[in-house]
Amino acid sequence: MRPSRAEAFSDGVMAIAITLLVLDLRVPRVEHGLGAALLAQWPSYATYVISFLTVGIIWLNHHMVFDRLRRVDRPLLLANLVLLLVVALVPFTTQLLAAYLVRPEQGVAGAIYGANMAAMGTVFGGMWWYALRRGGLLARPVTRAEARASIARFAVGNPLYALAIVLGFLDVRIGIVLYAAVAAYYAAFVRLPHVEPEPA
Amino acid sequence: MRPSRAEAFSDGVMAIAITLLVLDLRVPRVEHGLGAALLAQWPSYATYVISFLTVGIIWLNHHMVFDRLRRVDRPLLLANLVLLLVVALVPFTTQLLAAYLVRPEQGVAGAIYGANMAAMGTVFGGMWWYALRRGGLLARPVTRAEARASIARFAVGNPLYALAIVLGFLDVRIGIVLYAAVAAYYAAFVRLPHVEPEPA
Amino acid sequence: MRPSRAEAFSDGVMAIAITLLVLDLRVPRVEHGLGAALLAQWPSYATYVISFLTVGIIWLNHHMVFDRLRRVDRPLLLANLVLLLVVALVPFTTQLLAAYLVRPEQGVAGAIYGANMAAMGTVFGGMWWYALRRGGLLARPVTRAEARASIARFAVGNPLYALAIVLGFLDVRIGIVLYAAVAAYYAAFVRLPHVEPEPA
Amino acid sequence: MRPSRAEAFSDGVMAIAITLLVLDLRVPRVEHGLGAALLAQWPSYATYVISFLTVGIIWLNHHMVFDRLRRVDRPLLLANLVLLLVVALVPFTTQLLAAYLVRPEQGVAGAIYGANMAAMGTVFGGMWWYALRRGGLLARPVTRAEARASIARFAVGNPLYALAIVLGFLDVRIGIVLYAAVAAYYAAFVRLPHVEPEPA
Repeated sequence: MRPSRAEAFSDGVMAIAITLLVLDLRVPRVEHGLGAALLAQWPSYATYVISFLTVGIIWLNHHMVFDRLRRVDRPLLLANLVLLLVVALVPFTTQLLAAYLVRPEQGVAGAIYGANMAAMGTVFGGMWWYALRRGGLLARPVTRAEARASIARFAVGNPLYALAIVLGFLDVRIGIVLYAAVAAYYAAFVRLPHVEPEPA
Repeated sequence: MRPSRAEAFSDGVMAIAITLLVLDLRVPRVEHGLGAALLAQWPSYATYVISFLTVGIIWLNHHMVFDRLRRVDRPLLLANLVLLLVVALVPFTTQLLAAYLVRPEQGVAGAIYGANMAAMGTVFGGMWWYALRRGGLLARPVTRAEARASIARFAVGNPLYALAIVLGFLDVRIGIVLYAAVAAYYAAFVRLPHVEPEPA
Repeated sequence: MRPSRAEAFSDGVMAIAITLLVLDLRVPRVEHGLGAALLAQWPSYATYVISFLTVGIIWLNHHMVFDRLRRVDRPLLLANLVLLLVVALVPFTTQLLAAYLVRPEQGVAGAIYGANMAAMGTVFGGMWWYALRRGGLLARPVTRAEARASIARFAVGNPLYALAIVLGFLDVRIGIVLYAAVAAYYAAFVRLPHVEPEPA
Repeated sequence: MRPSRAEAFSDGVMAIAITLLVLDLRVPRVEHGLGAALLAQWPSYATYVISFLTVGIIWLNHHMVFDRLRRVDRPLLLANLVLLLVVALVPFTTQLLAAYLVRPEQGVAGAIYGANMAAMGTVFGGMWWYALRRGGLLARPVTRAEARASIARFAVGNPLYALAIVLGFLDVRIGIVLYAAVAAYYAAFVRLPHVEPEPA
């Protein structure tokens, strides 16, 4: 199968999952003090922004990977389906985190959110690792050094997610700062080995 | 009409239906015991995974079929619309199954879920059968033996779905194991006759 | 602007509107008698099917029109936006019709549903009429006779929608049979003048 | 990255956000007087139309900009992600405005809606400004006069949004008339410098 097909479907699922996040924002029904009622919902806004940017970065890196593929095989397609299954969970885990951010069970909610983030990172890194190992999928072979460096750059996120889960049991706000930091890291620093010149 | 048009629309509907499944997952509102409250929702997670993978496999096989088409005619487009109508029902039947998985009426819920799965398989198999029979739609004619083998591979799902419905009246959990097994079967084994070399 | 751009966006909106229809189907929460509770929701299933097929046919005819365009200008894009605004209302008017199908106010609900259908038909017919009249949009000029015939075929729906609204005040079930009939008519009979050979 | 990728994802998010607006329309549950109950919801219809057209115009102008790009760099992609984050908020701020349009807190609701509109305009204008300034992104360099004129045309919306927020504290209906007027202005008058002939 050509990568463009799987990409279009993945774009669709990621675009929908990212946009469904808005359904977690609820209009408060109050007679007076709308401003205060809206401000009290700050956990929903914070998690909306972090989840939106994280899924957006996943989309960005997903394209970087697929741009380097010449074709996709069935194991890669099934792994991609598992990635989408995990991405599509984000509106649920985001709503969970927002609902419990300032309540006693915040550590549990934070751990589940973190597990969702880590699962995205793990499946995604695994797909790239598989594409590197399996012959004939990449548009151009990459050197061993390039491969190792790119895997390392992807892998950085997972220990940080583990740390965020642990610290989240102390105070989940430390956790979400870390989630935001990982998104910023992936947004700013992750590069893949260059494979072919882009068409002009 | 070119197949690419119908494919893009079908991709859209399937991507949305698969992502709307997450709306069946509800955040429990409890003061204490969030972990237990989340675990108690295991029917929702099980049905989420099975439905997600089943629709994902339908999407995968849908592309395998459309990749082999040179053009689509009006009967095929209308059959495709019926397929999408049935696929778009999956979030509803999934929610129904999850809601009744551990309650007395589980057999009825399981039967309706199974009927939805079987309807997808039947309409989809019918589309492929029609494409094989009607001249001028396939990019390359397939041999009679290839056609028969591919029809047989598609048809395997339906008796299994019927069995899952019947066994589901005994215990719906046997049913959902079978639904998962059919999805795994389609994921791993269904191949279509090769029609033309893919562009590099 | 190239037609392909506007088409992709229109496909997206129509695919989402058609898939959101499933949110109108609610899982009944009963202890016993799930089968009966589900059957009692037949108005929701009937309106789901009719609305799904109607929007599907609109999508089909939308493509037939855009396939014949060489470029789109700003008035056509704005008219297309109004068409999408009306199509995106269908999940709302469908839910309204289903909710009141067997209740006293069924005539009002049916009239609003019919107005939504008629608005889709009117805006859509207007777009095709504009494309015929305005020079330089069509990939190939059509003859006056072809243009008149195609406009006539599109226009048939509107008096039928008006009739369905009026008869719906007697019994809304007569109305929905008519809505289904119009969808079937458009599905089976509407052809546009051939403009250019499709690429193989 | 090629602009087409980012465009497809942006189209998806904007198509979903625009279609989710329909979820703000609720079916009233009344025994008698359905017509009156529906008419009482006029704030929802008014805000639906204005938000739908505003996001539609944003989509239209988004394409005008991306049509003029040869490639996109990472800062532009991240800015585009922020634009989508703001666009995806529109169903929430629209529902907020509709809920409070005829209630005491209308000024606050109107201000938040206006801030959402202004944020879309600001991020979008910033993207165009960045594309003009940074070398190598545009398909053809534009003259300094063209650049200045196009920036000015984009910038007109923001003081109008600020005015709408202020006047909305007197009467939010003045505000929404202004929001509609800005959408109409962008729909009718905004042109970008011509960069290259469109393919026929």
